[in-house]
Amino acid sequence: MKFSIERAALLRALAHVQSVVERRNTIPILSNVMLKAEKGELSLSATDMDLEILETVPAEVSSGGATTAPAHTLYDIVRKLPDKGAVEFESNGEQTTLSVRAGRSNFKLGCLPTEDFPQMAGSSLPHAFELGASDLKTLIDRARFAISTEETRYYLNGIYLHAAKSGDVAVLRAVATDGHRLARVEMPLPDGAGKMPGIIVPRKTVAEIRKLIEESNGSIGVSLSDTKIRFAVDDVVLTSKLIDGTFPDYERVIPSGNDKVLEVDPRTFAQAVDRVATIATEKTRAVKLSIDRGQLTVSANSPESGSASEELEVNYSATPLEIGFNSRYLLDITQQIEGDGCRLLIADSASPTVIRDTSDASALYVLMPMRV
Amino acid sequence: MKFSIERAALLRALAHVQSVVERRNTIPILSNVMLKAEKGELSLSATDMDLEILETVPAEVSSGGATTAPAHTLYDIVRKLPDKGAVEFESNGEQTTLSVRAGRSNFKLGCLPTEDFPQMAGSSLPHAFELGASDLKTLIDRARFAISTEETRYYLNGIYLHAAKSGDVAVLRAVATDGHRLARVEMPLPDGAGKMPGIIVPRKTVAEIRKLIEESNGSIGVSLSDTKIRFAVDDVVLTSKLIDGTFPDYERVIPSGNDKVLEVDPRTFAQAVDRVATIATEKTRAVKLSIDRGQLTVSANSPESGSASEELEVNYSATPLEIGFNSRYLLDITQQIEGDGCRLLIADSASPTVIRDTSDASALYVLMPMRV
Repeated sequence: MKFSIERAALLRALAHVQSVVERRNTIPILSNVMLKAEKGELSLSATDMDLEILETVPAEVSSGGATTAPAHTLYDIVRKLPDKGAVEFESNGEQTTLSVRAGRSNFKLGCLPTEDFPQMAGSSLPHAFELGASDLKTLIDRARFAISTEETRYYLNGIYLHAAKSGDVAVLRAVATDGHRLARVEMPLPDGAGKMPGIIVPRKTVAEIRKLIEESNGSIGVSLSDTKIRFAVDDVVLTSKLIDGTFPDYERVIPSGNDKVLEVDPRTFAQAVDRVATIATEKTRAVKLSIDRGQLTVSANSPESGSASEELEVNYSATPLEIGFNSRYLLDITQQIEGDGCRLLIADSASPTVIRDTSDASALYVLMPMRV
Repeated sequence: MKFSIERAALLRALAHVQSVVERRNTIPILSNVMLKAEKGELSLSATDMDLEILETVPAEVSSGGATTAPAHTLYDIVRKLPDKGAVEFESNGEQTTLSVRAGRSNFKLGCLPTEDFPQMAGSSLPHAFELGASDLKTLIDRARFAISTEETRYYLNGIYLHAAKSGDVAVLRAVATDGHRLARVEMPLPDGAGKMPGIIVPRKTVAEIRKLIEESNGSIGVSLSDTKIRFAVDDVVLTSKLIDGTFPDYERVIPSGNDKVLEVDPRTFAQAVDRVATIATEKTRAVKLSIDRGQLTVSANSPESGSASEELEVNYSATPLEIGFNSRYLLDITQQIEGDGCRLLIADSASPTVIRDTSDASALYVLMPMRV
């Protein structure tokens, strides 16, 4: 195998591919990226057995072939090479070493045989649709903060993606919850997603696809079965196993009868919560909302630090009420509200509160109160 | 006590002062900043018992007084307040709580009595001189990377500052070493420093004064005795105990007979070392320099990753030689060389090498080789 490739294009591809590779691996070949050169193209792939990435870039291939080399080391090398110029790769006959040359630098990397490189079993992905990059960004950003990190509740360690009805409108819905808060985001159902099963996309896959679409403005191809999902972003294909579990019936958690309505400017509210939380106890991060006609007082108390309070003008005309929340969770949600109004729908100080953007019905958040 | 102060001025002062306060303290009052308001001025001070900072800023004082409040909490609060506007402080009669008001925010902080706030014993500092901020920056930057972190060798945990002779010229010299490398930097001896004792300025003090002069372009007042040093930067006074120990006779470590001279461009050299070190073993980070007439090959080998080499054109006309160094240490030194030439004075592959800037005689570095 022998090929030459522009350093900038290679660096970009390696940045994507090495991101999937875990820092520590008990199976050595999982630290490697597979390089396959043929017909004017270099394809790079990496896997962690659950998630697989494949990227194709143009290259000058003088002799085709394939090998696998340490992904992070190769990325570090290319990152440190001078900006401009080409990088030349050549592997020996047995493909046991790969030489990398650029300018006056010479590297020899140990390789592992391509036969040992794990390939995800190919299977059909019957459901396919297209998503705008910015739509997918929104779906992910508004839901991912609520993904659970508790490994025992593995079925909550991802975003639940499924087709649903919002009133009469067919929607694609993303839901995430950790038991303390829940995020439900939806967008018009894309063509081809009508019969898709409900699937749970793992946290790492969510993170990787989010990184990939950061650079993209186009359209993302999504195809899936009930065990796998594939994203196609420009020249990159990301294929992931899904979480094999049952997502809880989240609709039951979303209260519908919350009749006390508080409307507040999300930026002012977030700043007040953030400031007041400076005083909140490290452990609970609890802040108290004391709501009265037209006025909200955000406050916190801690035996160590003292107390804090801030008053805000709000829209509220129901009976006065006190309710406590984890300030971190409140901020996670208010950060997702882009409009000028944040609406809290409250039942009482012990029941889940619903939070929405007054100017955007596509997202809904549920937050459990805390005793304060 | 009651006073009002511009948020921006307060934030700047608190940023300096809280930096001295350790995150964890077994003695509660060490977490606090002392606030003293009188005659149109607020003075803020903090201490860790070894290092004391005092800053004075203009304030509108309606009633003078003093108290102590949690430094990090107060800094966080002020940081989160809106950009513009004043912050009002008021303490109750017993000075047990301090109320902080800005806009619609209200904070009450628990205070501790000023009597318990440790004051460093005042003692005379007979040696006083002025240093340009940029001169002090250079002294610190070129020496601090070599400070030892080994706590058992406490007398190496700082920069040794003293008056010396460089040939016939009187100089102020800063020396640091961790046993593997040594940095010696000097500048013309300022007036008033002629009779100063040799002192060891602790690592934390070096870091704090370096932060303070980052913002300053003026002149720094230095005064010292054989147990203490004081820096005056604009409105800030930093007073520190010195390390009570004997700095080793560093002159004995600096070889004078190294006759093999290698001259190399420091940027090209650093980049080559950095690239090649990608392959070096995590543990030793060793790179090998193979030096021949006019040519230097930087190389590394590791059983895990493979090998790397890079060739550079250099000035060298002595006998061919191989010598190994810790790449991290080499980079620390080359980063301090601002001129176009880096000169290595080598004896043999087992003896300390001297490294200098060809265009600047004020700094000298000694680096122990490694077996490679």
